[in-house]
Amino acid sequence: MSWQVYLSGEIHTDWRERIERGTADAGLDVEFTGPVTDHAASDDAGVSILGPEEKPFWKDHQGAGVNAIRTRTLLQQSDVVVVRFGEQYRQWNAAFDAGMAAALGKPLVTLHPESHDHALKEVDRAALAVAREPEQVVEILRYVMR
Amino acid sequence: MSWQVYLSGEIHTDWRERIERGTADAGLDVEFTGPVTDHAASDDAGVSILGPEEKPFWKDHQGAGVNAIRTRTLLQQSDVVVVRFGEQYRQWNAAFDAGMAAALGKPLVTLHPESHDHALKEVDRAALAVAREPEQVVEILRYVMR
Amino acid sequence: MSWQVYLSGEIHTDWRERIERGTADAGLDVEFTGPVTDHAASDDAGVSILGPEEKPFWKDHQGAGVNAIRTRTLLQQSDVVVVRFGEQYRQWNAAFDAGMAAALGKPLVTLHPESHDHALKEVDRAALAVAREPEQVVEILRYVMR
Amino acid sequence: MSWQVYLSGEIHTDWRERIERGTADAGLDVEFTGPVTDHAASDDAGVSILGPEEKPFWKDHQGAGVNAIRTRTLLQQSDVVVVRFGEQYRQWNAAFDAGMAAALGKPLVTLHPESHDHALKEVDRAALAVAREPEQVVEILRYVMR
Amino acid sequence: MSWQVYLSGEIHTDWRERIERGTADAGLDVEFTGPVTDHAASDDAGVSILGPEEKPFWKDHQGAGVNAIRTRTLLQQSDVVVVRFGEQYRQWNAAFDAGMAAALGKPLVTLHPESHDHALKEVDRAALAVAREPEQVVEILRYVMR
Amino acid sequence: MSWQVYLSGEIHTDWRERIERGTADAGLDVEFTGPVTDHAASDDAGVSILGPEEKPFWKDHQGAGVNAIRTRTLLQQSDVVVVRFGEQYRQWNAAFDAGMAAALGKPLVTLHPESHDHALKEVDRAALAVAREPEQVVEILRYVMR
Amino acid sequence: MSWQVYLSGEIHTDWRERIERGTADAGLDVEFTGPVTDHAASDDAGVSILGPEEKPFWKDHQGAGVNAIRTRTLLQQSDVVVVRFGEQYRQWNAAFDAGMAAALGKPLVTLHPESHDHALKEVDRAALAVAREPEQVVEILRYVMR
Amino acid sequence: MSWQVYLSGEIHTDWRERIERGTADAGLDVEFTGPVTDHAASDDAGVSILGPEEKPFWKDHQGAGVNAIRTRTLLQQSDVVVVRFGEQYRQWNAAFDAGMAAALGKPLVTLHPESHDHALKEVDRAALAVAREPEQVVEILRYVMR
Repeated sequence: MSWQVYLSGEIHTDWRERIERGTADAGLDVEFTGPVTDHAASDDAGVSILGPEEKPFWKDHQGAGVNAIRTRTLLQQSDVVVVRFGEQYRQWNAAFDAGMAAALGKPLVTLHPESHDHALKEVDRAALAVAREPEQVVEILRYVMR
Repeated sequence: MSWQVYLSGEIHTDWRERIERGTADAGLDVEFTGPVTDHAASDDAGVSILGPEEKPFWKDHQGAGVNAIRTRTLLQQSDVVVVRFGEQYRQWNAAFDAGMAAALGKPLVTLHPESHDHALKEVDRAALAVAREPEQVVEILRYVMR
Repeated sequence: MSWQVYLSGEIHTDWRERIERGTADAGLDVEFTGPVTDHAASDDAGVSILGPEEKPFWKDHQGAGVNAIRTRTLLQQSDVVVVRFGEQYRQWNAAFDAGMAAALGKPLVTLHPESHDHALKEVDRAALAVAREPEQVVEILRYVMR
Repeated sequence: MSWQVYLSGEIHTDWRERIERGTADAGLDVEFTGPVTDHAASDDAGVSILGPEEKPFWKDHQGAGVNAIRTRTLLQQSDVVVVRFGEQYRQWNAAFDAGMAAALGKPLVTLHPESHDHALKEVDRAALAVAREPEQVVEILRYVMR
Repeated sequence: MSWQVYLSGEIHTDWRERIERGTADAGLDVEFTGPVTDHAASDDAGVSILGPEEKPFWKDHQGAGVNAIRTRTLLQQSDVVVVRFGEQYRQWNAAFDAGMAAALGKPLVTLHPESHDHALKEVDRAALAVAREPEQVVEILRYVMR
Repeated sequence: MSWQVYLSGEIHTDWRERIERGTADAGLDVEFTGPVTDHAASDDAGVSILGPEEKPFWKDHQGAGVNAIRTRTLLQQSDVVVVRFGEQYRQWNAAFDAGMAAALGKPLVTLHPESHDHALKEVDRAALAVAREPEQVVEILRYVMR
Repeated sequence: MSWQVYLSGEIHTDWRERIERGTADAGLDVEFTGPVTDHAASDDAGVSILGPEEKPFWKDHQGAGVNAIRTRTLLQQSDVVVVRFGEQYRQWNAAFDAGMAAALGKPLVTLHPESHDHALKEVDRAALAVAREPEQVVEILRYVMR
Repeated sequence: MSWQVYLSGEIHTDWRERIERGTADAGLDVEFTGPVTDHAASDDAGVSILGPEEKPFWKDHQGAGVNAIRTRTLLQQSDVVVVRFGEQYRQWNAAFDAGMAAALGKPLVTLHPESHDHALKEVDRAALAVAREPEQVVEILRYVMR
């Protein structure tokens, strides 16, 4: 049993590494995918390849298009989607990914501190588990893949 | 030609009314739908009907479930989805709705100030139009339904 | 806003009537559908139309086929599915309908006493609300259709 | 030709082992999947990972969510779904799985004693075969994979 | 409750009229659809509109294309599909329609004499009822729409 | 029987009017839909509503987005899609619409002069009829809706 | 590039062997699938495994169910479907498979003598190629996989 | 991470080779697919296998059918679709493929000179990136697969 798990959301803490290390330690056969987490590269993905844009709106539009080639493909291929909401930033792309996962019928796990509970209630309602720590996601994977 | 347009997102300003008034003035045959916009009623939708919950998490979970009966049904029935991101709050449910609309192949229009452009770039990339004012949404509907 | 609500499950108590009466009293625009609730007619639906079968298994098979023409069509047409589990009987067809509703992405409401909670946990997990009394279903419809 | 077969339902007898042993003896290339069959572990899957819940309803809700990550993923990946109804218990999750399989267009095989025939007629009607013994399921797999 | 029922198959006997008359007498709200039953018009549907073809193969190809605009549209719109196999002719288009109906998840009713049972076993297996006389189809509709 | 027919493609000749007049004369119950055919309005649909863009590429991008809200919605709602390729222009949007119609399983009719036959062979292969004159489309509709 | 090709239809001549030999000689990477072609085993597939049935109708029903577990699974997995109509028999199952393939959007190739052209016109219209000899199917595969 | 990328469109320049060489140099795990690019073989694909046709329309129809067996299969299997519009020819099949890709939800990249921008605005609007040179497609793949 080999699963593909898409890790969406926050890119400024080590939650992905903690999940990957934990599942590796547990000997699970999981392939993790996700967005490009190099913030600068991600922001410049459009203009650095397709050419400069003066308006920030179109620069972002180009970049978001190139990134979506990756993210939509991998999200659609995945068996499970984990979405992390960190302490900071608006993270609307994380909630957007959660909405796509829900509409596609992908099992969804959210990962966020209790302080976000009320604001994330619609997203959490679509999830099959709400975790607080990356290690709980590892435990979930260890359990469901045993 | 009669269209059903789902208005998702911010519930604290009069953007829905401005769109509804504008389309009525334009004589368009549009049925607008959306979430329950009475904040208190929405928050209490679960516990007031299904019984009290002590933990805030489960109170929210109950409420979000009842609200989802409405929102998912109407979003799936709609021909066009408009998602408004206001100046305040995290509004993850709005981004979640946008993700569902995108995955369902619904034409998506976002409505937000320029200050949100960078944070919303993934959502905007999935939209067919990014409007700044409700009146632009009216003009879009007037144009596409003529 | 007019909705079609499929009422699946128990046929020996008046829960359907209580929901229908309550929504009528509330002035809601709901069309209720469901299986044929005349137990004897339902059991004989196959043999009375298609001819006698000696083996009970095939008699049931014929009857279940004819009934499925009705139930699958109406369940697929519905906007919301309510599934009632009563005190008695195995009611596997109710759980089967709940599984179909879940796979089809229909908003699901279950209605059953607390005594069934543990046995129905997988079904309830797929539901957006778990009600105890028919009047709560009326309140849910009143809320989501307002 | 390698097939993935999901074995849903009863967890208290050795029917899974008998099917697995039989197909192994027959040299068939089948990967069997199914729910976690350790009853205690399954019941505690939520609270042991995500934290304690006082109310039994929410404890079950948590557990059913974690289990669904496994069961929905594997059921959707499978080529054939076999659902076993044993002599005891209500087994609503088995009927729920059968409903999901039917709605997803998965070939369905039921496995149960004759005593359940009348109560399971709707589920059996959606099945392509109704077996009485695990060895018949082995024979079916041996035949369809030859 | 108004249903659309597609009547596919044999065009040389009065089975459609018998079903339509019977449901009218029963006061059922059914809209019947089906292929063009004027054999000559159907065969010439392509060449009479799109221009002559010398090769019979292409004449048939043109005609089948024009007819498919009607038949696929109506079959996809229908709630129930009834397929009649008469005593004569090969009627491959009837079996083809049955296959489309099955793949689309439409409730299927077949109507044919016992003499066809063995040859139609795969088609009948996909049907929810196998009727012998048009009046049985009327009875089925009367039952499922009550 | 009322059908919705989407008329895609060329906007510089009177082919739409000829089809609409012909079906009206034939007394057919058809609702015709299509893109906005006012060329200037269509080209300016984005910038006139959403604000000016200096780069022609983004001006077109904005306009195409607003137009797609209309065209995708109507194309998806339609029962039949007719795509006209005129004598002039590249008309890639017409071929694009034909590709969408084919992938969505919509019955497709193409309308073009013989001189385009070789260049349109892939599109025509996906069509159920290839017409040369608008009056032939009227005849097709008259035949399939009789 | 490895393809899975489902070979449906006639089981009394060597057309499958001719296609398999030809593609092997051409060095193509094709996995061929299809129904069980041992006529007696196929007819008895139900009763020999699930137990005897007195009525021929239910014997056939059992057998068709068991066979469908194989045929529907393999047809849905296939990249291309080839359907052979031989000189004899009614072969309604072949036309049924063609209908399923068409509704599932599978590229369809038919294989039959010219004498069947008129009777098969609806099926052929849904096909991307109509071949007369198995060797033409080999040539098609050789061309499309080069 | 291994991706399948479908390269649709122009067959008279070396753009495919430039993309394939670039991704090979970058060490990316990509399988490229596309139509048969031998123009003469493609045009004769039907008649050379299925027999001569006098009318050019039917010769093209046969050929387009055989080619579609390849192109639709590969396009549906692909993770990403790249569509090239060259300087010359009408290239309606390229736009048709883009429409199919869009309707199937495949990430779409277009590749064409600026001179086509206005004529391709509807196609480009459905794309996630508009490239000018094959090397930009290589850079996109390098970025999204890193």
